[in-house]
Amino acid sequence: MSVLKLGLPKGSLEQTTIDLMKKSGWRITTSSRSYFPGIDDSEITCSLVRAQEMSRYVELGSLDCGITGKDWTAENGSDVEVICDLVYSKASFRPTRWVLAVPNESDYNSAADLAGKRISTELVGFTKRYFDERGVDVAVEFSWGATEAKVAAGLCDAVVEVTETGSTLRANGLKIIEDLMESNPQLIANKAAMADPAKRKKIDQIALLMKGALKAEAQVGLKMNVPEAALDQVCGLLPSLTAPTISHLRQDGWVSVESIIAESVVREIIPALVSAGAEGIIEYPLNKVV
Amino acid sequence: MSVLKLGLPKGSLEQTTIDLMKKSGWRITTSSRSYFPGIDDSEITCSLVRAQEMSRYVELGSLDCGITGKDWTAENGSDVEVICDLVYSKASFRPTRWVLAVPNESDYNSAADLAGKRISTELVGFTKRYFDERGVDVAVEFSWGATEAKVAAGLCDAVVEVTETGSTLRANGLKIIEDLMESNPQLIANKAAMADPAKRKKIDQIALLMKGALKAEAQVGLKMNVPEAALDQVCGLLPSLTAPTISHLRQDGWVSVESIIAESVVREIIPALVSAGAEGIIEYPLNKVV
Amino acid sequence: MSVLKLGLPKGSLEQTTIDLMKKSGWRITTSSRSYFPGIDDSEITCSLVRAQEMSRYVELGSLDCGITGKDWTAENGSDVEVICDLVYSKASFRPTRWVLAVPNESDYNSAADLAGKRISTELVGFTKRYFDERGVDVAVEFSWGATEAKVAAGLCDAVVEVTETGSTLRANGLKIIEDLMESNPQLIANKAAMADPAKRKKIDQIALLMKGALKAEAQVGLKMNVPEAALDQVCGLLPSLTAPTISHLRQDGWVSVESIIAESVVREIIPALVSAGAEGIIEYPLNKVV
Amino acid sequence: MSVLKLGLPKGSLEQTTIDLMKKSGWRITTSSRSYFPGIDDSEITCSLVRAQEMSRYVELGSLDCGITGKDWTAENGSDVEVICDLVYSKASFRPTRWVLAVPNESDYNSAADLAGKRISTELVGFTKRYFDERGVDVAVEFSWGATEAKVAAGLCDAVVEVTETGSTLRANGLKIIEDLMESNPQLIANKAAMADPAKRKKIDQIALLMKGALKAEAQVGLKMNVPEAALDQVCGLLPSLTAPTISHLRQDGWVSVESIIAESVVREIIPALVSAGAEGIIEYPLNKVV
Amino acid sequence: MSVLKLGLPKGSLEQTTIDLMKKSGWRITTSSRSYFPGIDDSEITCSLVRAQEMSRYVELGSLDCGITGKDWTAENGSDVEVICDLVYSKASFRPTRWVLAVPNESDYNSAADLAGKRISTELVGFTKRYFDERGVDVAVEFSWGATEAKVAAGLCDAVVEVTETGSTLRANGLKIIEDLMESNPQLIANKAAMADPAKRKKIDQIALLMKGALKAEAQVGLKMNVPEAALDQVCGLLPSLTAPTISHLRQDGWVSVESIIAESVVREIIPALVSAGAEGIIEYPLNKVV
Amino acid sequence: MSVLKLGLPKGSLEQTTIDLMKKSGWRITTSSRSYFPGIDDSEITCSLVRAQEMSRYVELGSLDCGITGKDWTAENGSDVEVICDLVYSKASFRPTRWVLAVPNESDYNSAADLAGKRISTELVGFTKRYFDERGVDVAVEFSWGATEAKVAAGLCDAVVEVTETGSTLRANGLKIIEDLMESNPQLIANKAAMADPAKRKKIDQIALLMKGALKAEAQVGLKMNVPEAALDQVCGLLPSLTAPTISHLRQDGWVSVESIIAESVVREIIPALVSAGAEGIIEYPLNKVV
Repeated sequence: MSVLKLGLPKGSLEQTTIDLMKKSGWRITTSSRSYFPGIDDSEITCSLVRAQEMSRYVELGSLDCGITGKDWTAENGSDVEVICDLVYSKASFRPTRWVLAVPNESDYNSAADLAGKRISTELVGFTKRYFDERGVDVAVEFSWGATEAKVAAGLCDAVVEVTETGSTLRANGLKIIEDLMESNPQLIANKAAMADPAKRKKIDQIALLMKGALKAEAQVGLKMNVPEAALDQVCGLLPSLTAPTISHLRQDGWVSVESIIAESVVREIIPALVSAGAEGIIEYPLNKVV
Repeated sequence: MSVLKLGLPKGSLEQTTIDLMKKSGWRITTSSRSYFPGIDDSEITCSLVRAQEMSRYVELGSLDCGITGKDWTAENGSDVEVICDLVYSKASFRPTRWVLAVPNESDYNSAADLAGKRISTELVGFTKRYFDERGVDVAVEFSWGATEAKVAAGLCDAVVEVTETGSTLRANGLKIIEDLMESNPQLIANKAAMADPAKRKKIDQIALLMKGALKAEAQVGLKMNVPEAALDQVCGLLPSLTAPTISHLRQDGWVSVESIIAESVVREIIPALVSAGAEGIIEYPLNKVV
Repeated sequence: MSVLKLGLPKGSLEQTTIDLMKKSGWRITTSSRSYFPGIDDSEITCSLVRAQEMSRYVELGSLDCGITGKDWTAENGSDVEVICDLVYSKASFRPTRWVLAVPNESDYNSAADLAGKRISTELVGFTKRYFDERGVDVAVEFSWGATEAKVAAGLCDAVVEVTETGSTLRANGLKIIEDLMESNPQLIANKAAMADPAKRKKIDQIALLMKGALKAEAQVGLKMNVPEAALDQVCGLLPSLTAPTISHLRQDGWVSVESIIAESVVREIIPALVSAGAEGIIEYPLNKVV
Repeated sequence: MSVLKLGLPKGSLEQTTIDLMKKSGWRITTSSRSYFPGIDDSEITCSLVRAQEMSRYVELGSLDCGITGKDWTAENGSDVEVICDLVYSKASFRPTRWVLAVPNESDYNSAADLAGKRISTELVGFTKRYFDERGVDVAVEFSWGATEAKVAAGLCDAVVEVTETGSTLRANGLKIIEDLMESNPQLIANKAAMADPAKRKKIDQIALLMKGALKAEAQVGLKMNVPEAALDQVCGLLPSLTAPTISHLRQDGWVSVESIIAESVVREIIPALVSAGAEGIIEYPLNKVV
Repeated sequence: MSVLKLGLPKGSLEQTTIDLMKKSGWRITTSSRSYFPGIDDSEITCSLVRAQEMSRYVELGSLDCGITGKDWTAENGSDVEVICDLVYSKASFRPTRWVLAVPNESDYNSAADLAGKRISTELVGFTKRYFDERGVDVAVEFSWGATEAKVAAGLCDAVVEVTETGSTLRANGLKIIEDLMESNPQLIANKAAMADPAKRKKIDQIALLMKGALKAEAQVGLKMNVPEAALDQVCGLLPSLTAPTISHLRQDGWVSVESIIAESVVREIIPALVSAGAEGIIEYPLNKVV
Repeated sequence: MSVLKLGLPKGSLEQTTIDLMKKSGWRITTSSRSYFPGIDDSEITCSLVRAQEMSRYVELGSLDCGITGKDWTAENGSDVEVICDLVYSKASFRPTRWVLAVPNESDYNSAADLAGKRISTELVGFTKRYFDERGVDVAVEFSWGATEAKVAAGLCDAVVEVTETGSTLRANGLKIIEDLMESNPQLIANKAAMADPAKRKKIDQIALLMKGALKAEAQVGLKMNVPEAALDQVCGLLPSLTAPTISHLRQDGWVSVESIIAESVVREIIPALVSAGAEGIIEYPLNKVV
């Protein structure tokens, strides 16, 4: 039996990833002292690896596949296969951004204004390439953390830092002057592993189910009873990409309409459905949408 | 674009209200230092305001609408429009009561017995009016908290205090001798805001979805397969206000029956449904019932 | 009105049992100082009783029924009626095992090898009977806890201890050489109580709903749209014990297929369903499966 | 035997006060549900009372004495005897201040600029008197809390709020334009109680020991060996109010010098003592300084 | 080199014992998974053992000595040598008591009244002997915990339970009708170990320093300057068993008086010392008093 | 006025360093969001900087001085002035070690055995130099953390990691085969800052008081009354580097002996002092020893 070596990201994405794996159908059990979580699938073994190093070990084949940020795969310049994007973060289901930030009161307005300056970042390779491509000569220094505080402390002139909402940067008196890269977790795989049919099948299974679980986070089921006469109007209100399931009811003249829609639009759609004549509207939660 | 100024109750109802708003379709993000939570709706701005003061600011128009207890609107005597009742509390989905309580061992049996006595309460105005209407002369003192301990400490003769189950009063050696008012959260609105069509529409949307989310807390979906012959008996067991959705199954002689019922009666109904011949009964959770 | 005296297990199973009762339809309210939790059913009163002692009090009739481990009923040798098995533990939905464990480096391979040795356990009566039945003479000592550490401390030669995964034993340098008993919670009842029709009805109701709630923990609802041509293949993929509910859709040539399946097999079935032509597959959570 | 009724402040000062009482020589035992803490002195009974209400109950004689803020005694205008100041707060050993604060960007520079405006505060009576005395007509409203957020929320024009460092005000975008009152805890007593010799003696004992414990918080013991020749210089370095204790040593030509000094100056004095020739300098902690 | 096997009590006394050992001069390092704490003394090895079982293992020689309650040594009837009493508990420095308790409203007034009744306790052997010696026939049952709740639950008629203040018993509606035994921790030793000079020396060292650390918990140092004329009066005020250390000061006519006294009397003595003319009184904490 | 820019180590040493500064005489107030803690000394400003980067910024003069590990100053090869060693860690008062560790079951016995292997470490520069100096060719890779798990995960062959007790390495199945460097915190300063007399004086003051506070952590005061005849023997027992302070007592024939000794030897010395005739021995805690 072929066993797949799967890398899970240690640190800020760890718990969210484990929760997502659980929704996807795999129970992972961690213990505070071990870097090798248990998993209820005899065809997989797991290792916790820092997101920063994941692509390095997937490329080398120490791992068959792993979940890590697009940013770190880019930083390492690793030659791996990207299986799918998995858009979530520690706190939300949005991508993160790497940005160039400078003090609020400074006159810098773009990367070009920083020629000759010192820039602090955790993403040294990527940042150097970014400035090189634009022909701007800067000193890029590796930051061990707390990067956003370094400008105010007089330790550098600008930072390249990751952010979701920008609030930590603002709280440190910084403004964003350029977006360098958008990032999100990805499932990446070793190329040789993808050439092995058994491993490839397992990797595809993980991808299918994780995407299904992630999609369900942002969607809900909506079900209602609709008079036949109002059916077209009701269907017109439901977002077109999700063809509603319509079934006959025993009661003449009524049909049951069921659809999966984005949770974010429910609050707009429900009042409209009520106006259109829908009755007994219920919304229910989903585990997976495939 | 018109923006609605919404007040959310700071303190004991805060987290429950934010959770309920989330179920209703709005994500509210608080931070420990700010009184202005974020909301993912550009047509609303939020402020955290104490329930005790909410109606005052809604009346003045500093807020367009707000969620606060019926008790505090009454205490303040504010001229606002009540949009809907939202029956929940910090710990449950029941109304709270303001009661008159005295020591277990005292001879007081009603408000009338307290003539000439000292009464401690947070609801000074309402309590004074209550005793005035009954022609009983008492001294009503504002209590800054821990009201239920004041009788035993010899600081007053009786208290008017809010309670859900009465257990805190009992633990302090007090007995309830009169119910003064039942209270629950309400969505209240400024009268001028309700005259503005855009604001009114938004307020109605909030009311519709919060009521839908709250209803779903106490209800569940029930689905089962029923032989046609047993259909009338099964439908007779389901509470009449919720017309069940009946759909034909491919298998002859069987229909699928689906209904939304109060969670509190499920434990009585399921054994009866089994006896009546229903099979494959499942109960599933709901997010909203509109 | 007849009132049923129900014993709930105090300690490691307490919170899980209360959560399960809530899913079953009964809200139990505990307070940190009281051994008599409230319940929202006037036909039941609850007591928190240690699992070790439950069967003793059910046998005597101090309680009409109770939830406790099969192991402790066996240890006490109580004459009670077992109503149903409820397979859950503090941390999972698996049975626990009582095992005989010895140091990794020892030469003991079975119970027979321990003749003349000292064995530490919380289950003194059962352990004595187990060795007696096999004609092995050992000294069995009651352990007040931390049993797994006693061998390494030189306080005994072997232990009989409860375990779910064996990890605590391994962490203490012990290996399992014999399985003595598998255990799980059970609903047990006093025999006289079962002869009282009102009490029996209530006990049966509790059993039916708890089993339904427990079943739902490990199962999910799966719903999909299937072209009529693929229906047989799709149905063939769904585990046979759960006859899928098939309903006609308004759209010609398509049916809706809905089934309840074990969560543990979803990850295998979904990829197969996709291959077979199913579309719009959703998985949703369940509260009860009866 | 006469028993003294002592009020302890419930809430933010509660734990600090109990810790200070312990250092003073009385062990107070609280339980989460009771407002009547135990005390290891049969001549005292304790009640937990809100600081805001303390002076009211001391004046009425429901309590013989109590610890509360100077501010609330002023707000209530209570006729009580102030026994001593006890300068500590929840977080430090500094007094607190009640200040008038307005938005950073406003043009208000003094109380006089606020004529016709709305002011929110917990200290309504005191604030009204303060503006009345200055002939400034303002509307003063009782605030139930979170006062510092009300200006930004558009609910009032200025606030009168208590602060230690001003940081909460700054974080809410407010600037202080006037200091209204400095406050600190005080031991206050009922006048009749002070006329009773037994109660007076007990109150004086509490005052003496609490002052001693409080003094010790900010002071340390310093001891060193000094050559006789350097003694005058060393003594000159030690703050004059604390006459050092000088004792002869067995070793000719050396004396031992011991002094109690403020902890805040130790870091300046020690380097100077070393320069002056002191040796074997040790600093040790104190429980009481009387 | 001889190594002493020391047993430390696992459970409620564990942390307090480790803290006391630290004050005595030994640093013990525990980890959540191990029953063999580290100690910074190569002549000692530690095991964590339940207090209930300690004397059994000390008697057998599995341990050379151990700290456990007098009650459990009595219950086990172990033949060990008691080295010294160490009066402390989880929460205080008082002994605990085993008492016989019955419902408040019962008519039982002494052990004799309980003939024919059922008694629940963790101390089965001791309780049986106690009633046997008084010729009272009772059924004594082993309780796995929560003993104090069993009477109210109708599971027994009386309990024999350990208590410090009686408050848990009162909270469960019980009253104490007889004191059976006072207990406190003791250092106990194996008799053969005490016959080994090296082990005996080590055990004596532990006893001397633990007693010194425990004594220091309840005592403080007091130092003051006294005019020679007032010396006799001041010395008369200091408890006689602790001869004060009096040293000459450089300043004529004054002496320094230093004494170690019980913390519990400081609050009475300081006011008297002030009246007698003492100045510059300081109280300081102690680590050990030997 | 000259203001000193002081860097404090962010992260594992942060709280211990702040506690030590407090014992030294400076109160530092941190807030969770700020990297610029407050300090109660107008001649100092503080920044929180990662220990790894501290020496870089002290060398550049962005900071005048800072507290950081000797290891990171070596790694960075920074040209700074070492003012003093401060031997403490997050958990103890011992130095830490950087070691070379390999799997328990491997045949590697020294650095030389690792030629051609891959080594993971946070200290890349130092490790490369170490192997270069010994002429061993290895691949050294930067580790983002969890280094000790990388060998077992098959990601590298050996690690260079910091350890205090070796327990984390052991728990990960590694053995130490070589010690590379011992490290501890140091106060380091910029060379230009040390040439500025005002800054130098401040830095010296910090060094003097931190050393004094650190020394006091491991020492205690010991005081006893000794008969003159036993004085020589008692003094002989006290470690010679701390000359005891001997003062005459009023009582003829007795002297008071006071000494500061290492806490670690108290448990050996006290029994000997008792044997020698010392009486009234007390041990008391110290804040500083200079």
